[in-house]
Amino acid sequence: MSEEKRTEIGELGEFGLIEKLSGGFELINDKTVKGVGDDAAVVDSGEKYTLISTDMLLEGVHFDLSYVPLQHLGYKAVTVNVSDIAAMNGIPGQVTINLGISNRFSVEALELLYEGVQIACKEYGVDLVGGDTASSGSGLVISVSILGEVAKEKVVYRDQAMENDIVCVTGDLGAAYVGLQVMEREKQEFLANPDMQPKLEKYDYIVGRQLRPKARMDIIHEFSELGILPTAMIDVSDGLASDIFHICKQSGLGVAIYEDKLPIDKQAYETAAEFSIDPNACALNGGEDYELLFTIGQDNFEKIKNHADIHTVGYMQTKEKGKTLVTRNNNVVELTAQGWKHF
Amino acid sequence: MSEEKRTEIGELGEFGLIEKLSGGFELINDKTVKGVGDDAAVVDSGEKYTLISTDMLLEGVHFDLSYVPLQHLGYKAVTVNVSDIAAMNGIPGQVTINLGISNRFSVEALELLYEGVQIACKEYGVDLVGGDTASSGSGLVISVSILGEVAKEKVVYRDQAMENDIVCVTGDLGAAYVGLQVMEREKQEFLANPDMQPKLEKYDYIVGRQLRPKARMDIIHEFSELGILPTAMIDVSDGLASDIFHICKQSGLGVAIYEDKLPIDKQAYETAAEFSIDPNACALNGGEDYELLFTIGQDNFEKIKNHADIHTVGYMQTKEKGKTLVTRNNNVVELTAQGWKHF
Repeated sequence: MSEEKRTEIGELGEFGLIEKLSGGFELINDKTVKGVGDDAAVVDSGEKYTLISTDMLLEGVHFDLSYVPLQHLGYKAVTVNVSDIAAMNGIPGQVTINLGISNRFSVEALELLYEGVQIACKEYGVDLVGGDTASSGSGLVISVSILGEVAKEKVVYRDQAMENDIVCVTGDLGAAYVGLQVMEREKQEFLANPDMQPKLEKYDYIVGRQLRPKARMDIIHEFSELGILPTAMIDVSDGLASDIFHICKQSGLGVAIYEDKLPIDKQAYETAAEFSIDPNACALNGGEDYELLFTIGQDNFEKIKNHADIHTVGYMQTKEKGKTLVTRNNNVVELTAQGWKHF
Repeated sequence: MSEEKRTEIGELGEFGLIEKLSGGFELINDKTVKGVGDDAAVVDSGEKYTLISTDMLLEGVHFDLSYVPLQHLGYKAVTVNVSDIAAMNGIPGQVTINLGISNRFSVEALELLYEGVQIACKEYGVDLVGGDTASSGSGLVISVSILGEVAKEKVVYRDQAMENDIVCVTGDLGAAYVGLQVMEREKQEFLANPDMQPKLEKYDYIVGRQLRPKARMDIIHEFSELGILPTAMIDVSDGLASDIFHICKQSGLGVAIYEDKLPIDKQAYETAAEFSIDPNACALNGGEDYELLFTIGQDNFEKIKNHADIHTVGYMQTKEKGKTLVTRNNNVVELTAQGWKHF
């Protein structure tokens, strides 16, 4: 490597960087079933598969403590990891939490954070089993790892979607992103006029979606009860467009998404309009919804078609047909992904 | 909780803080065998136990990039986690790595870091199976989690040491700490006179112990071959004194350590003298040696007494007899732990 060569991290983007850094690694342990490249890694532990996933939240990048309460942050840090286990059709079991903290945090502040962790642990039946704390030069750093398990015949990857499979998404999309815009606006108004009281009541749902997302373990349990095994699945962390791209790429397929089928909550829709942003763009690219995005064979359609919280939004097509969005006016345009960029 | 109450993190220390924060958590998942409080957590995965451990390294706290090469840092980040699996008598399998990085790092710099990760992965038969990268406001943050496995009847905890068990330690102690002093001195001299060339040749062993510690998986394999099952075990990350205290506390015992039995490398000994620091104190409190500290029943003594790299340094005694150090002059003094403090 020449000493002069300097490639900026921003040139590659987050996914490009991970691919570049982990690209040279071959799997050498015969227990490893799936390495980098899905919501969780898969390890053969004999009777079942063990799942492991990890996520790091950095102050100033992933959260802003001027409007994110510490208790909610602790809750969310666990939730986003549970969501990764859900996306493998797995059941979460244990988490570890590493904290980097500066002296500006008191023990009482950290206890609030852990109250949120504990609420999430109880809700998802997960144990906190380990972790480190260390002083951090600047902001708060939270790194969570999670263990889960799944029966070997039930694990769901991103790469097994088939042509003509139906694309489904749970809940609604875009609300977390619009909720973030509301909090950013309140923050600016507060900075301009500290005496002002925040008016968040009419935004309660969308702000809650941002601060306290739920992992859809309820859907995973329903899959089991209904005998549904998705062909591919991912959780919506970067936005539907970005996340369906992972399924397309890994399954070697294209997709057609119908704009008028995107599930958008009324409050999110109206607030997006208030901000003069397109609610469809929020649904496609907003991210942080932590809903499940999955594909099923057409023979499974009967089982989900009347489900109040599962929405069919499109179908998988050949790679040659591309990734397309059918707009409300029935124009077919290219689907583009503008998910979160952290660099 | 009153709003006025503010307890500083430093009042509790690292272990006190972890205990306080995780103290309110009860284990609720029936697969969790062991939660917080050992080198790794233990999960029942059916045929075997799955082990999980995690460690976070923060720039400016755990490492100083002005003298730690990135390749060595990547190697060490994996090694310290492997060492935690070794301390449970387990075999490591997979790691995940979360990176927080600022824009001052180029892609090429991160590739160096991952070269070190890869070398360690190959050496220990471990796969890199996941992780995140995100921009960090300031320094480099590396959070590693590791999975391992162990046969159910072979797991070794910290809490099963018995009175009269022999205390053993592998390799030598204190060298990593003395190596750190050498590098700190070189850094100061370099800052004072940038034209000076560092003279590290005569310190190669101790500097290597600091930069590139080994996890003692060789010993774990030997235990298996020799039919040795320690009664308690921990890896020496904070210093022998601090680490034996964990075994004492969790096993409800005291200990007697013999100063003249502490294994100290010649280069470490001489360099400590050069710095006018007590080599015994380095061995007891230096930390970062990543050797294994364990207790065995007296009936196992024959199996290890001629082992070149296992040293008997004392024995476990009742709690009432306390934690004692028998000095070279045969004085019996209280053993005190002054391990690393990160707050």
